[in-house]
Amino acid sequence: MAVYTDITDQELEAFLADFDVGRAVAFKGIAEGVENSNFMLETSAGRYILTVYERRVRSEDLPFFLGLMQWLAMRGYPSATPIADRSGATLKTLRGKPAALVAFLPGLSVRRPTVAHCREAGEGLAWLHQAAEGFPDHRVNSLGHAAWEGIFCSLTDAAEALKPGLSSVIRRDLDLFARCWPRDLPEGIVHADYFPDNVFFIDGRFGASIDFYFAAWDQLAYDIGAAVNAWCFEADGSFNLTRAQAFLEGYERRRPLTKEERAALPILAHGAALRFFLTRLNDWTATPAGALVRPKDPLEYERKLAVHREGLPGFGAWS
Amino acid sequence: MAVYTDITDQELEAFLADFDVGRAVAFKGIAEGVENSNFMLETSAGRYILTVYERRVRSEDLPFFLGLMQWLAMRGYPSATPIADRSGATLKTLRGKPAALVAFLPGLSVRRPTVAHCREAGEGLAWLHQAAEGFPDHRVNSLGHAAWEGIFCSLTDAAEALKPGLSSVIRRDLDLFARCWPRDLPEGIVHADYFPDNVFFIDGRFGASIDFYFAAWDQLAYDIGAAVNAWCFEADGSFNLTRAQAFLEGYERRRPLTKEERAALPILAHGAALRFFLTRLNDWTATPAGALVRPKDPLEYERKLAVHREGLPGFGAWS
Repeated sequence: MAVYTDITDQELEAFLADFDVGRAVAFKGIAEGVENSNFMLETSAGRYILTVYERRVRSEDLPFFLGLMQWLAMRGYPSATPIADRSGATLKTLRGKPAALVAFLPGLSVRRPTVAHCREAGEGLAWLHQAAEGFPDHRVNSLGHAAWEGIFCSLTDAAEALKPGLSSVIRRDLDLFARCWPRDLPEGIVHADYFPDNVFFIDGRFGASIDFYFAAWDQLAYDIGAAVNAWCFEADGSFNLTRAQAFLEGYERRRPLTKEERAALPILAHGAALRFFLTRLNDWTATPAGALVRPKDPLEYERKLAVHREGLPGFGAWS
Repeated sequence: MAVYTDITDQELEAFLADFDVGRAVAFKGIAEGVENSNFMLETSAGRYILTVYERRVRSEDLPFFLGLMQWLAMRGYPSATPIADRSGATLKTLRGKPAALVAFLPGLSVRRPTVAHCREAGEGLAWLHQAAEGFPDHRVNSLGHAAWEGIFCSLTDAAEALKPGLSSVIRRDLDLFARCWPRDLPEGIVHADYFPDNVFFIDGRFGASIDFYFAAWDQLAYDIGAAVNAWCFEADGSFNLTRAQAFLEGYERRRPLTKEERAALPILAHGAALRFFLTRLNDWTATPAGALVRPKDPLEYERKLAVHREGLPGFGAWS
């Protein structure tokens, strides 16, 4: 949660001059997202979020992300709509950095999702998968299955430092995925970061999802596996099967899974846990001691990995 | 700019249960204020700022600050109105820390104030001084003139480290103030932190002022001196007499200065520059190297001090 780029009133005025959104009435940096700087903007025409993209988002990926958000909005999916300037451009520049204006979305994210929240979130994810169908642009999932060996390569010492013996356990995870990673499952656009803080609820119902800056082409069921890791574990690391069943039940309200997808869910969730463990371990290692913004604890995902390694009774029997 | 305290949806719901403000519709941490954590809250009833007071605000001072804000609101001064819960309390607790809910204020602060902004800001400050008249509570200005010797005491080495020879120059400032600090000027409640980021404009007119967490009893003209330091210097450290004259002109639209106040302004502004220099030097020294949130540069105020030491042609001839 941070604001890395400071915008002056004059820079804001110059930025807004390209748009038909009226004059600024209020403008505040908001602590949302760890990758970008976000500002809440109110103008005489409405409310918006202004995002300045910091170095962790590759600028060559931004047309894909903004194009996807426009596509989803046109298909009626509740996500932040990018606002085009008078020339039709959504990708702009502010302080020499890429920036975009999107419509403000009401809604509250939840910290500790209930079973009912999981059901709603599952439905919202299926809706996203369907709404993204036909989106013509393509983006390889740069943090997908094929990337993990390469990321782990430079992190074996860090894994050992975190927990002695861990690097050989992860080696075995990777060997398992190399042998058994599912193929030929339905593919499409995945959110790839469908965590509770990226989903808004309104009166307990799914309201919207945000933060499409990891979206890519991948197996749709992999997105479910990653989401179940994020929504259906307790703070103590235990797996909540009831929440996972509700997530799936909600998902299948809109898009029933194939038999092959259902069978693949345990290994897909196991792999997704490794993906988040590896990037968190990398961030953890790269952050200097004493920094005020602490990265997320990689051990949270190591505990989830351990649960997946044991196997989950009832996990294959979902729904 | 930071959010130090993280509030979950459940904690927010429990907090709001004491108030008649409806249900939360949106809730975001905002990067406003360096002393406290602030959140923008939208409910079915309206928009609010929720402030969680962090350790730098003494909790025993909070009834004074919140009482003053209520007083100002009742007198029609545009500042954030504290919202009372059903029992009439404005000072609440959240996550074991003091917290308060205040009404949201529209408006934009300016980074580089124009002459017109300074005139409006000056009028807003006089309005504040008048609106606070009669407020029955009292708070000594703990960072006022009487405190500077004690603060400097532990910072002589830090001053030398910042700039060799600086500690004896400041010693001479303090000696000057000990001999010549004005007495018997009109006193009242001062804002004491009336910086551009604490003043909101709407369509170029004074809209509101916020952040009363340094407010105290002191000489009213001292508040003008501190504000002129904040509003009327260029980025290169030079003094902008036109802006200062406009600030005073705006101020006197509402509250004409006495002859004694006008004559005292140069030394009051000089002293106010020392106050901000000392606290910034203290924060600078206390912050570990490599911290992501950098404190404000004390040298900005050392440059202003140097300007005051030279004297300001035309400064006594204001308005």
